[in-house]
Amino acid sequence: MNSPLPIAIIGLGNVGTGVAKILTQHPERITQRAGRPIEIRRAVVRDLKKSRDVELPAGGLTDDIQSVINDPKIKVAVELMGGIHPAREVMLALLEAGKDVVTANKALLCVHGDEIFAAAKRLGRTVCFEAAVAGGIPIIAAVGQSMAANQILGIQAILNGTTNYILTEMLFRGQSYADALRDAQTLGYAEADPTLDVNGTDAAQKLGILAQLAFGTKVSATEFHVTGIDKLEQVDIKHATDLGYVIKLLASVKLVKTRLEMSVRATLIRRDRPLAQIHGPFNAILLDGDVVGNVWYSGRGAGQLPTASAVTADIIDLAIGRAQLTFAQLDLWRTTPEFPLIDPLQASSRYFLRLSVEDRPNVMAEVTGILGRHGISLATIIQPEAPEVEAGSTAVPIVPLIIMTHRTTAGSLAAAERDLDRLGSVRSPRMVLAVAD
Amino acid sequence: MNSPLPIAIIGLGNVGTGVAKILTQHPERITQRAGRPIEIRRAVVRDLKKSRDVELPAGGLTDDIQSVINDPKIKVAVELMGGIHPAREVMLALLEAGKDVVTANKALLCVHGDEIFAAAKRLGRTVCFEAAVAGGIPIIAAVGQSMAANQILGIQAILNGTTNYILTEMLFRGQSYADALRDAQTLGYAEADPTLDVNGTDAAQKLGILAQLAFGTKVSATEFHVTGIDKLEQVDIKHATDLGYVIKLLASVKLVKTRLEMSVRATLIRRDRPLAQIHGPFNAILLDGDVVGNVWYSGRGAGQLPTASAVTADIIDLAIGRAQLTFAQLDLWRTTPEFPLIDPLQASSRYFLRLSVEDRPNVMAEVTGILGRHGISLATIIQPEAPEVEAGSTAVPIVPLIIMTHRTTAGSLAAAERDLDRLGSVRSPRMVLAVAD
Repeated sequence: MNSPLPIAIIGLGNVGTGVAKILTQHPERITQRAGRPIEIRRAVVRDLKKSRDVELPAGGLTDDIQSVINDPKIKVAVELMGGIHPAREVMLALLEAGKDVVTANKALLCVHGDEIFAAAKRLGRTVCFEAAVAGGIPIIAAVGQSMAANQILGIQAILNGTTNYILTEMLFRGQSYADALRDAQTLGYAEADPTLDVNGTDAAQKLGILAQLAFGTKVSATEFHVTGIDKLEQVDIKHATDLGYVIKLLASVKLVKTRLEMSVRATLIRRDRPLAQIHGPFNAILLDGDVVGNVWYSGRGAGQLPTASAVTADIIDLAIGRAQLTFAQLDLWRTTPEFPLIDPLQASSRYFLRLSVEDRPNVMAEVTGILGRHGISLATIIQPEAPEVEAGSTAVPIVPLIIMTHRTTAGSLAAAERDLDRLGSVRSPRMVLAVAD
Repeated sequence: MNSPLPIAIIGLGNVGTGVAKILTQHPERITQRAGRPIEIRRAVVRDLKKSRDVELPAGGLTDDIQSVINDPKIKVAVELMGGIHPAREVMLALLEAGKDVVTANKALLCVHGDEIFAAAKRLGRTVCFEAAVAGGIPIIAAVGQSMAANQILGIQAILNGTTNYILTEMLFRGQSYADALRDAQTLGYAEADPTLDVNGTDAAQKLGILAQLAFGTKVSATEFHVTGIDKLEQVDIKHATDLGYVIKLLASVKLVKTRLEMSVRATLIRRDRPLAQIHGPFNAILLDGDVVGNVWYSGRGAGQLPTASAVTADIIDLAIGRAQLTFAQLDLWRTTPEFPLIDPLQASSRYFLRLSVEDRPNVMAEVTGILGRHGISLATIIQPEAPEVEAGSTAVPIVPLIIMTHRTTAGSLAAAERDLDRLGSVRSPRMVLAVAD
């Protein structure tokens, strides 16, 4: 029997408690898999008085992070504080103190990954982050190890369970966005402040980590197109369904010659595609490798136990010594990326437009004329029958106009949108969604 | 730069050529991922004169396996001969000679895995076998590493691309089994002798390896229920479709209390389940872990490049030193399995029966009476309208009778089948298929 591996868990929230449970409730299993016992020597919490759902060794609970940083016996620290500050400072101090770190902190890695990884490499330490992207899916191992013979050509993914749950409720139960969000909050799938989930930031951070891993390209969320689902209306879901599509918050990165096209946005996906069939709080990832072709993963992206499963696998990898070898070999956060991002205005896509237009002669000609002048050709155009006008009303009735375009650049579309805005006959709101190939 | 890793490839067939291509066509990529160049020092072939689709270093080709075994510079041997003899003897000699081995040989591992793995452990060597199961899907890494925090509770999988291609053609093109098989052979999805694919042996060998990895249980294909798709008729596909199911060759192992229920058989899967939607030559695997829940994988299971991708990932893992750590930790081929197999007659399932019965009074009562006496309760019973009898015919018309049962044991069903055989009114052929939960 090898000597135990003493670890510290920093943050005993939902995931931290899950990790502590796995380690304390299944010690034989973990010892067998890791080749040595894993011992929780400290757990750092904010409130020592709060009652905990897990039994820790006496004296293990502390509210003093320094007691971890300064304890040379602790070899591995599991950072589950979340957020960027003070998580960044804590992470750097842990590395400086000679500890390997396991983290699920996607925001921190997306924003300060280059600094943290450089510090770890300089100090000969290892950072494990399987849990930072799509908790239950071992996507970091897949990209970093299993696809090692491949140049990855593209990644298409559903990386945010909250929005996927909301979209599923809107699709199958006909709920409004607001009602579906409230239900998601009640069920614990959405946080009290859901902003970072519903506006696409969370998915963009995860996609940023995947892009760095797969292409060595550091991207900040301001450099590529990121939108969420918070403006979607039930009528968009319905029009998409009528056209044979399902709307998902799609995170996508694709190698086009030597440049990356990257986006996170509500996207129409053909109903028969695998990603269109991922419902509820699940995540899914489709990888395209130049040797292996398409490989597909799906599982729970968040939640206490799926995320804790990934964190624990990382701890076991460190106990075995495998994670150290993997980390030394990962070519992350290069200073000169091989594949820079394409200018977002040059990225091309098919688009779904829902316009509100005045129901009078010539409007259709005006709208299609503008699109045509910007070189945008139309695949489908649907003007649903207008509601009957109330007798005596003198207002011009407003009707929806649904357009699916062929492939065009974001720049052309933006220029066409500016011209549409100048047209008195096109009113707000306007909905513009991408359509996946 | 670390020193190159000299390897030998034994067998330059389809997969061996693929591996050689990846290594020779992308040397910078492989060197970067492996931390050192990987150098093909020898490739062993049967026929030195055959023209090859890949460029090897001059003098690298040999028909003498001893020149690999006796070359101390070769650290890693890639065994792609296939078959059991002499692959077993070659593998043992390579390990004895101090080489680590990468293999895609599922038949060898299923039958002699215990001997080979014990030899490797005794000699301090490593055997890598990611390519042996579902080539394009990194399932060995998933079970052996990523799910390390979990007790796996069950695996359901489509592990044979040939039969899945045939079933897909029968489903979507209405082909007979024989026609679909012939097309699969023409397209290279089935071999000239497809026996081991269509009778379930290939899938059973792969499931055997997964069961050993996930449960530490060594199983030979005679200890569990293995049948293929070679008796299926188009009418079975049609009846399954009418009932809302798709027929797949399902490989399944499930932990029931402390025993394993394991089978490979043509199985009705509800149309809306993910496994029912895996078509063509693809493989898919659904893992159920006690911590992470369900995780789902899909990709190409065979073919030159997907399999070569897995072999190359194993070579890279050996070059880095990661595979050695993983192998030392895998608890494979235990002598006393924690979870023994259940007696196959005690295994329970729902069943689909297609009987050919005489179209005369009382037959339905006789058949359902027999099932009832064996405690088998019926979920659905369909007797399609009989074809019109030709005027003047005196033969009793034979009509199909389709029955879906509730859950029952294989033993009860076998006993009922024996009683049905004694009934003059039930004729051959009879089709019995499992129905997935």
